Amino acid sequence: MNAIPEDLRQRTAALSHELTRTFPGSSKVYVQGSRPDLRVPMREIRQADTPTAAGGEPNPPIYVYDTSGPYTDPAVTIDLLQGLPDLRGGWIRERADTEEQAGPASDYGRQRLADPELAPLRFAHIRRPRRARPGRRVTQMHYARRGIVTPEMEFVALRENMRLDELRRRPEYAELLRQSPGQAFGASLPAEITPEFVRDEVARGRAIIPANINHPELEPMIIGRNFRVKINGNLGNSAVTSGIAEEVEKMVWAIRWGADTIMDLSTGRHIHETREWILRNAPVPIGTVPIYQALEKVDGVAEELTWELFRDTLVEQAEQGVDYFTIHAGVLLRYVPLTARRVTGIVSRGGSIMAKWCLAHHQENFLYTHFEEICDIMAAYDVSFSLGDGLRPGSLADANDEAQFAELATLGELTRIAWDHDVQVMIEGPGHVPMQGIRENVERELADCYEAPFYTLGPLVTDIGPAYDHITSAIGAAQIGWYGTAMLCYVTPKEHLGLPDKQDVREGILAYRVAAHAADLAKGFPGTQIRDNALSKARFEFRWEDQFNLSLDPDRARAYHDQTLPKDSAKVAHFCSMCGPRFCSMKISQDVRDFAARERAERDRGMAEKAREFRDQGSEIYLRK
Amino acid sequence: MNAIPEDLRQRTAALSHELTRTFPGSSKVYVQGSRPDLRVPMREIRQADTPTAAGGEPNPPIYVYDTSGPYTDPAVTIDLLQGLPDLRGGWIRERADTEEQAGPASDYGRQRLADPELAPLRFAHIRRPRRARPGRRVTQMHYARRGIVTPEMEFVALRENMRLDELRRRPEYAELLRQSPGQAFGASLPAEITPEFVRDEVARGRAIIPANINHPELEPMIIGRNFRVKINGNLGNSAVTSGIAEEVEKMVWAIRWGADTIMDLSTGRHIHETREWILRNAPVPIGTVPIYQALEKVDGVAEELTWELFRDTLVEQAEQGVDYFTIHAGVLLRYVPLTARRVTGIVSRGGSIMAKWCLAHHQENFLYTHFEEICDIMAAYDVSFSLGDGLRPGSLADANDEAQFAELATLGELTRIAWDHDVQVMIEGPGHVPMQGIRENVERELADCYEAPFYTLGPLVTDIGPAYDHITSAIGAAQIGWYGTAMLCYVTPKEHLGLPDKQDVREGILAYRVAAHAADLAKGFPGTQIRDNALSKARFEFRWEDQFNLSLDPDRARAYHDQTLPKDSAKVAHFCSMCGPRFCSMKISQDVRDFAARERAERDRGMAEKAREFRDQGSEIYLRK
Repeated sequence: MNAIPEDLRQRTAALSHELTRTFPGSSKVYVQGSRPDLRVPMREIRQADTPTAAGGEPNPPIYVYDTSGPYTDPAVTIDLLQGLPDLRGGWIRERADTEEQAGPASDYGRQRLADPELAPLRFAHIRRPRRARPGRRVTQMHYARRGIVTPEMEFVALRENMRLDELRRRPEYAELLRQSPGQAFGASLPAEITPEFVRDEVARGRAIIPANINHPELEPMIIGRNFRVKINGNLGNSAVTSGIAEEVEKMVWAIRWGADTIMDLSTGRHIHETREWILRNAPVPIGTVPIYQALEKVDGVAEELTWELFRDTLVEQAEQGVDYFTIHAGVLLRYVPLTARRVTGIVSRGGSIMAKWCLAHHQENFLYTHFEEICDIMAAYDVSFSLGDGLRPGSLADANDEAQFAELATLGELTRIAWDHDVQVMIEGPGHVPMQGIRENVERELADCYEAPFYTLGPLVTDIGPAYDHITSAIGAAQIGWYGTAMLCYVTPKEHLGLPDKQDVREGILAYRVAAHAADLAKGFPGTQIRDNALSKARFEFRWEDQFNLSLDPDRARAYHDQTLPKDSAKVAHFCSMCGPRFCSMKISQDVRDFAARERAERDRGMAEKAREFRDQGSEIYLRK
Repeated sequence: MNAIPEDLRQRTAALSHELTRTFPGSSKVYVQGSRPDLRVPMREIRQADTPTAAGGEPNPPIYVYDTSGPYTDPAVTIDLLQGLPDLRGGWIRERADTEEQAGPASDYGRQRLADPELAPLRFAHIRRPRRARPGRRVTQMHYARRGIVTPEMEFVALRENMRLDELRRRPEYAELLRQSPGQAFGASLPAEITPEFVRDEVARGRAIIPANINHPELEPMIIGRNFRVKINGNLGNSAVTSGIAEEVEKMVWAIRWGADTIMDLSTGRHIHETREWILRNAPVPIGTVPIYQALEKVDGVAEELTWELFRDTLVEQAEQGVDYFTIHAGVLLRYVPLTARRVTGIVSRGGSIMAKWCLAHHQENFLYTHFEEICDIMAAYDVSFSLGDGLRPGSLADANDEAQFAELATLGELTRIAWDHDVQVMIEGPGHVPMQGIRENVERELADCYEAPFYTLGPLVTDIGPAYDHITSAIGAAQIGWYGTAMLCYVTPKEHLGLPDKQDVREGILAYRVAAHAADLAKGFPGTQIRDNALSKARFEFRWEDQFNLSLDPDRARAYHDQTLPKDSAKVAHFCSMCGPRFCSMKISQDVRDFAARERAERDRGMAEKAREFRDQGSEIYLRK
């Protein structure tokens, strides 16, 4: 029985229209891997010719990393009620180390499935969960350590490499490949990303591929210092606002603009059902903070949390397909008093929940004491750890303090334990940090946590910018990304003030795409500057349409241009609104260039003339008088 | 005869209402200097009490730097048709080194004044221009070198210091004064800014006080590496759009949000008249690029520019009161061909105009060959140089190249010449630079230009963010400010796309206020963190109104909050929309803090108990058995 009510049906159906438009001037293309079912999506942006006297000189297409999934492929019919195609199912099954379960193993999952009142909200095509066969570990790290290059690893290698090997062989890309030398702060960026390099980085824990076996819709991606800097977008309804359709829409919207992963931070009544909808429609990894839902289950009374309840929540979410879990296992009882004199105490929700539990019971954090059991669950589904920084600073005054760094050292200790179980790990970081304190965060993380990928929130470089915290934090994010952070958790303009709506999500994602790209450029990631070079060339040549299409947000770039010069003819005009038709510096530059060319030509003609004279006179170096 | 037409009258009168609102929870206050007519404006933000069991603990008012001028002083009646009060007139007159002229000395100024058709556009109360008496130099640098502390210098000292000396003596500010140690990259930040320090910095050319003697409405400010980082906002109608009332409104709007100086980049038909309106209503320094207007005078044909025409333009603008001139005197003939192979050639308008002139005439740039004559004019009105970077890079591909740095070295040579004439100088910088190339720009500028203040546009750290270039550039601006740049020229979201409207101006200014403040924090400028600490404390204590009022944009912070939780009661609620009433981490933190306090109290009681036992037993260290 499909009990989805008509209004939800209509709302979800309506999404697909707005969100599946292809980007202007762009096509979805796929790079074929070593097997027929391994096709890596990219976006190809076509370019117009450079106008010349001879009629035009072609500009090659530009390839850009594409997080938007099948939504922007006109060949794929999107139906949110059906979910996305099962991309990885074959890869997972053929490894023959997992088995399909009869049904949910978690108590909570069973309850929800049995509750008839939830039928109208429930995703209709829930798969039976898979888990590792007894005694098996099914993580990408496990395979990598055994020397196995999985299809997931090949997929991310092709995806990171963005056809760079091919472009390097094609002369029309030679100029576009010019790039300033980077400053990599100890990162080891290879000239080309190979599947073997991916395997090696995953094996040594320096990168993770978050890819739950119950999330086969996923297009694999990698998070690590020697790969492109990634960004995460947060979603989540809360008790106050937002519903299922709205959250799914925000997810699709966020990946359209460039979110590499999504964290579902929902805290409302239907967390379980919302998550199912999101996962079944998500081509990117989904992360959660399971303690939020666990707390919901004990009606918000932190003291009543138990290991058993939390354990059931982990299994529930792992079976749904969550790809990484934020676990605040580093908030130790003895660290809590270190925060008492802070200006803003403990600002992490998970951190404060665990701190309260520790104090109420006068016992050590159960996430810490049960950490190996957690590892066993993670290993059975390939859920990655995002070890939470429950004591991160919530203000400049609290940055880089004893509480923060004490927890970081514990996260390092836990990283070792997780790696002993072949479980992938990344480490969460701050928060609010003034610029001069940012680098210390990266250096300590790399040292204390053995180069496990760092995943930071911002950091915000000042506290006085509410309503502009996407900017206060993008400034910090660009720097921390440059220094070696692997993934940047976005911040929207509503941070500290309210819940982000769709426009806020777009603002946050775009600010972070800027920060991540700036970091890639600064590190010197190969090929990063191609898009900048192409856009700048288009700008110089007044190819307005190409300029829009090559930009991170073509729609807004075009709209802003049109506010001043709306006519279509202005998009081929050799001037723009900043200077008007008379003043254009780009036009004058072109004149300068033409002039220099004429001068050069005259000089050459002069040289030819002299050469002819020289020959006419018998080609003797010393003329005889 | 006052010929201002009714519609312009109405539009300018209407401005004053919207733009003169005081900021919420704030008052305009003045710090009294050493003389009755020296009163330095600041904004005082009141704070509510911290709720306690005993009924409340007061929080002291916070003082913030205020660029908004008399517009936000309810005691001042604003009438744009009259212009602002004449703050510095007395100071200038009592120096007795200038004299009032009978009328404009420039040919163009005389023509415009005599043209009856311009009467409806003309500002009604044009002052007679002043200039230095023959043989006198009237620059702040001249006075500083002679050991004179002018009222302008005392004004900026009090303004930069922001009552810090006083706050340090008041115990209620002790916690708020906590600040992370800065990393100053060789800047010499004193613990307190004194008038003598200001004099010394101006004398050695490390800071400038742009203050034309014909701009007495100015509230003096200082630009230098050892002072607060400043920001500039650009205005200007172009041939395509915008009018007088709109530009004046944008100016008042820009200083309301925090522009320290304004550049008027108008290129339209009524440049002269627009500028008069702006200057007479501007409490901040106004900069221009005189070559734009000169080009206008020769109908846009760069080849027809002459030294005589340019000279007349300088005098025209100096007499109106422009405080600094961008002069592209470093674009030398031999540097022009260095740009021919660039991706984006010459993107500076002034730079491209001069390049075209040089090539057309096969002569050296007349701004360079006549540089000493320019210095004489600047010295007679105290106009500061902003030595333009006509060859700045317009794309990442062109950053830090030979053309750019060749020009920079020439700007250093010109700085020496200007200083020989006692003329104040700052140096303009890029542009588009990837993050790893930013620091080299500052280091070279400090070395080549003898620490003259650096004034940069952004830089933009990527080319692919059109519509988000306030962000791509704020990332670069924060860093270059940290490394030692004294003033940051803002970039709006419309950069490269169109002309900024009022909202774009606000976005640009706010992004740059964030960047400048982040830079001050990172350098460790004394007292900078007070506002951050106060806002964070207010946030932790759920003093929502204080949080809004202390933020850079109180209106937007409040509006964003109200979008999610519009009710007034939510502004005193001890929770917010992010987590809802059940989950609040700040509330849990407070519980943790209370818990820690109880624990401490119990321990203390235990100690007291033990102490009592000890005393009861005779206070003997070793009990006799």
